Amino acid sequence: MPDQKRIGFIGLSAQSSWASTSHLLYLQKTSLYKITALQNSSKTSAEAAATKYSLGNVATFDNPTELASSSDVDIIAVSVKVPEHYKLAKPALEAGKDVFVEWPLARNLAEAEELVQLAREKGVRTMVGLQARQSPSILKAKEIVQSGKLGKILTSTMFGHGAIFGPVMNDAFSYGLPIEAGANLLSIPFGHAVDALCYVLGELKDVSATLANLLPELDLIDKDGKPVGKAKKTAHDQINITGQLVNGGGLVNVTYAGGLSRTNRDFVWEIIGTEGTLILEGGRMGGHVQMYQPTVKLAEGQKELETVEFEKAADFSYNVGKAWDAWAEVGLDKGHAVTTFEDALVRHKMIDAIYRSAEKGTKESYL
Amino acid sequence: MPDQKRIGFIGLSAQSSWASTSHLLYLQKTSLYKITALQNSSKTSAEAAATKYSLGNVATFDNPTELASSSDVDIIAVSVKVPEHYKLAKPALEAGKDVFVEWPLARNLAEAEELVQLAREKGVRTMVGLQARQSPSILKAKEIVQSGKLGKILTSTMFGHGAIFGPVMNDAFSYGLPIEAGANLLSIPFGHAVDALCYVLGELKDVSATLANLLPELDLIDKDGKPVGKAKKTAHDQINITGQLVNGGGLVNVTYAGGLSRTNRDFVWEIIGTEGTLILEGGRMGGHVQMYQPTVKLAEGQKELETVEFEKAADFSYNVGKAWDAWAEVGLDKGHAVTTFEDALVRHKMIDAIYRSAEKGTKESYL
Repeated sequence: MPDQKRIGFIGLSAQSSWASTSHLLYLQKTSLYKITALQNSSKTSAEAAATKYSLGNVATFDNPTELASSSDVDIIAVSVKVPEHYKLAKPALEAGKDVFVEWPLARNLAEAEELVQLAREKGVRTMVGLQARQSPSILKAKEIVQSGKLGKILTSTMFGHGAIFGPVMNDAFSYGLPIEAGANLLSIPFGHAVDALCYVLGELKDVSATLANLLPELDLIDKDGKPVGKAKKTAHDQINITGQLVNGGGLVNVTYAGGLSRTNRDFVWEIIGTEGTLILEGGRMGGHVQMYQPTVKLAEGQKELETVEFEKAADFSYNVGKAWDAWAEVGLDKGHAVTTFEDALVRHKMIDAIYRSAEKGTKESYL
Repeated sequence: MPDQKRIGFIGLSAQSSWASTSHLLYLQKTSLYKITALQNSSKTSAEAAATKYSLGNVATFDNPTELASSSDVDIIAVSVKVPEHYKLAKPALEAGKDVFVEWPLARNLAEAEELVQLAREKGVRTMVGLQARQSPSILKAKEIVQSGKLGKILTSTMFGHGAIFGPVMNDAFSYGLPIEAGANLLSIPFGHAVDALCYVLGELKDVSATLANLLPELDLIDKDGKPVGKAKKTAHDQINITGQLVNGGGLVNVTYAGGLSRTNRDFVWEIIGTEGTLILEGGRMGGHVQMYQPTVKLAEGQKELETVEFEKAADFSYNVGKAWDAWAEVGLDKGHAVTTFEDALVRHKMIDAIYRSAEKGTKESYL
């Protein structure tokens, strides 16, 4: 198959992880792509993953510059801890490869801007893992809003729990505790959710934000749930923003709290228009709208709230798979699209505006 | 009964109204108070009310200065349209009477400050109709928060519909359409609800607000539901504020939308703490938490959400009645209290800060 693209994957470990339960699951089923190289922290670890997942005779690397120079790779995919994104993506861009990076693109706006600028200069194609944009629930919500069934949007209120940054946290994620890591409640679950919001309703004119770090010391547990001590946290665990839509001036509120819900309200998003109201609700872990599919209910005019039926995502490979498909120009007619570094930059600018707003007590624009 | 206080009531009409279904219903049952005078727009109207409600040989008045000078009156109660509050309450205060005024105390902060200052100078007792503070649901929520069952408060998110300022509105309320009237979504339903919030959780350090007037022209209907034309509106129909609690810095969000809910979410208030979560939910019209009683559910620690049982308010006379009782020092041991002009002034200052914040795009303090 001449059009099959060759992927050099950074971050596929032999332990089950996000990369294996989402990207790999899709890549093993598609004929559009083929993994031809792996890079891990060591060649041994890369070889272990190749064996575990029966990837055949893939090349293995332990550093991004060598991987980037491989002539057997068209696209480099980066699926590792957020703090590593910048330094792993940069050599790939410099080598002129097309690049996929998970969201957040980088630790902060400055790093993201540098990567976007580099991609522009090199004229390469980019994609970022804001995969809520491929969620059937979110696409259905976008379709309903665009159909005009809700009329003019008056108020959108979104509430979610971010799972991370409850009082007890898995120590595997302790790298996210310092705010500088850029891997936290604001950038990850809130970031994915607000990206879905803006995908459905359009961007915000401005944001006013309140952030709080009310649990500055967390109890850490290991993967078996055993206590392994305490750790300081500087990232925020409670988030609230308010703003207005560019399109029509409807009010937007997003609230994210750390931990999980005690009340089965892990995600509730209500969009109220002059002609109808839409509610998206997610169960346990539902605050991670990029991974878990909320239900969609619609009340048109004076009619009762009704469940909207649509094809559900079977597993974590669905959303990322539709994005990979779209990158190969498959499914574009079904509303799937490629979310680029440029899109990610808008979201990074928004998050930066949120930090500025919370710090200075001012309404901030990001567009 | 020597301690029975004599009330001169302004605004009791022969047509059923808030005053008759709440205050009158209580005052006809209590021995603590007696209505001895009525003031309406005309003596004829006052006499009609006296007859209709079998109030006996009450004095009738058509202006506040004469009522205020009556030696048969200890307390003057003002229960009329908000724009009239100031000019009706002022003569009563000047005459040195104790005064009750419905919430909002006045059209704006300046008027409220003047009334408060006058009451201070005259050394009279005052009460304002922020009657959510007597709601069994709100008192139960306050008791639970103060018991420490929720631990440290992390996030409080409140969402309500205000009934008024949907696309179609009863023309009897058209006096509330100009923002200058001070009788609108922000001052009335939001004002009562945020007052309940602050009564339960304490005041906010500051507020960031977004306000919108997205329905600047409404269709009016008469009391039979017949269309009677359109009217311009300058008051806001969508409200969103964010802030932090003085006590502990927990995040607070309040969203109010005009009209009624299409999705049975007329009022949802969730308070998330380190140790437990409380949810108050109100059915149709529930956004008016000062009148309608939300249910209360509590999830402690890892336990399931459970309904909290308590004595329900039988009718609209309950909340106002407990306030009148408290003014006579009855029920203070049960958590009932008198909400004074000074308390109302804090809420007026908050609303003024909300307007400033929305206009200037800044975080504003009000304490």
